[in-house]
Amino acid sequence: MHSLETLVAVLKEKMNARQFPATPASLYEPNEYFLSIGGKRIRPVLCLMGNELFGEISEDAYHAAIGIELFHNFTLIHDDIMDKAPLRRGMQTVHVKYSEPTALLAGDVMLIRAYEHLNKINSHYLHAVLSVFNKTAREICEGQQLDMDFERQEKVGLNDYLRMIELKTSVLLAASLQIGVILGGGGLDNQHQAYLFGKNLGLAFQVQDDYLDAFGDPGKFGKQVGGDILANKKTFLLIKAMEVASGAQLEEMNALLSGDMPDKVERMLSIFRECGVDSWAQALKDQYQQKAFRHLDNMAVPSGRKQALSDLARYLVEREH
Amino acid sequence: MHSLETLVAVLKEKMNARQFPATPASLYEPNEYFLSIGGKRIRPVLCLMGNELFGEISEDAYHAAIGIELFHNFTLIHDDIMDKAPLRRGMQTVHVKYSEPTALLAGDVMLIRAYEHLNKINSHYLHAVLSVFNKTAREICEGQQLDMDFERQEKVGLNDYLRMIELKTSVLLAASLQIGVILGGGGLDNQHQAYLFGKNLGLAFQVQDDYLDAFGDPGKFGKQVGGDILANKKTFLLIKAMEVASGAQLEEMNALLSGDMPDKVERMLSIFRECGVDSWAQALKDQYQQKAFRHLDNMAVPSGRKQALSDLARYLVEREH
Repeated sequence: MHSLETLVAVLKEKMNARQFPATPASLYEPNEYFLSIGGKRIRPVLCLMGNELFGEISEDAYHAAIGIELFHNFTLIHDDIMDKAPLRRGMQTVHVKYSEPTALLAGDVMLIRAYEHLNKINSHYLHAVLSVFNKTAREICEGQQLDMDFERQEKVGLNDYLRMIELKTSVLLAASLQIGVILGGGGLDNQHQAYLFGKNLGLAFQVQDDYLDAFGDPGKFGKQVGGDILANKKTFLLIKAMEVASGAQLEEMNALLSGDMPDKVERMLSIFRECGVDSWAQALKDQYQQKAFRHLDNMAVPSGRKQALSDLARYLVEREH
Repeated sequence: MHSLETLVAVLKEKMNARQFPATPASLYEPNEYFLSIGGKRIRPVLCLMGNELFGEISEDAYHAAIGIELFHNFTLIHDDIMDKAPLRRGMQTVHVKYSEPTALLAGDVMLIRAYEHLNKINSHYLHAVLSVFNKTAREICEGQQLDMDFERQEKVGLNDYLRMIELKTSVLLAASLQIGVILGGGGLDNQHQAYLFGKNLGLAFQVQDDYLDAFGDPGKFGKQVGGDILANKKTFLLIKAMEVASGAQLEEMNALLSGDMPDKVERMLSIFRECGVDSWAQALKDQYQQKAFRHLDNMAVPSGRKQALSDLARYLVEREH
């Protein structure tokens, strides 16, 4: 059994190797640049851990893990274009550093490269892995489209927001695990439990993300606390608060959303607290986390093998930064 | 054996069926709109014809054909964004009718949908088909990048231009044929000959395209003759003329390229004629066409089975519009 740290280190080494041909450099350099920005490599780690539930990590699992990470990077490059984001992890995004057409094409070729890695998987598993992967990839596009639609809508319901987060974030965590399980020879029920573990973990992760952005300890959080509030971003907290706020609170929230007053963050946070969305969010996170762990418990593999996934889940959901 | 007309009709019917889920409509309606614009469906026809060289057209060949056509449409949606093209076949492009972010995402999901169709292929053939498909898909991205690079370069060599056209246009015709052959059970040599037939056919096709744009009969051509010249587009004709022109001719060409005088088309055409690039282009086209036919001849299947491909090749290369 490998620890989280070991698997992250192995993947970082694999991802640091050159992933694309040298020419045409005008196409592939932007890809290498973007991969060099790095990342937590959580999704491929989940794939490897799902695989290791059933024995030694297979070569196929490494192929799938790299494919999944390249796919994730494809979504980031294209999302950054759509969101007009200037920075990613403090570095220039691809469309800013190069150009929009080049970033568009770099994303396309990153996606195709992901499929090239998946096609290294043993033919016995290829169809099953691609079924999960393709469905998930399409769902992620649906999630991004809903996210863009919601930005233009005045009011978004909590259930609609949940569905969007599920599509945009959770299904890839879920699919990464399921693919690891498929490649470990896991049956349909174990695949299903792994998928639901990942899906609920993803939801818990996103609730925590929204919570930390508003209520995180500035000394530990690393980013500017209140960034989502300043950007009027629709989050779990804002959407829930709009649902439970009194008439007067709602009026103040709408005023805050349409202006840029210097005390915007503090005033929104105090409405959040008055509405109890801070404790609501913590309870919601706990609920998803517990649900995730129940699905991990349900997996028919020796408990000792589940430790790494359990540790990773706690790290993702209980983190303070 | 099916005629070209029959296969085109069958594919049109298949492509007219809904290809995407109903929701989210904001994502999938742009895809359905773009597919409704239509097209010649040449690539999937080549896949079916390649397959029929070996017997009845298989269900797998239809899956591959649809996947290839969706892939081709993905490239068109994204190319239109990169080229800032307002129209495609006289209809609004996706980014103009909807928005750039939506067109970007619609293209992404069109590519993923292509892979969903390919994944319906029998597992026995899946790895081989995806190997050809993935390599080709990546080459097409390389071709598009080179095309964009060349637009910014003052001088482009004929060999570099040839390589770009090969990547951007020919390899997909070649791969469509090869995939049809793989799914017909054709061996490696037949696959190779089919690929080279398609590649040379694609080059002949592109030379004819450039020729017609300059020297086509305005009554038959359908588009404005001289459109490439007005747009300063680098074509076989312009690149060859720049290579063989005298000092005085080169000077006039550069003046024409940097201005928009009313007689720009006629003056450029008369330099083309003085340099003999009209007959050079016809000879080049014949050369590729003959090479293509030699590879078709080399295929180890009964000659009678080659008739449809031979007819299609003549139609593509000898057309006057």
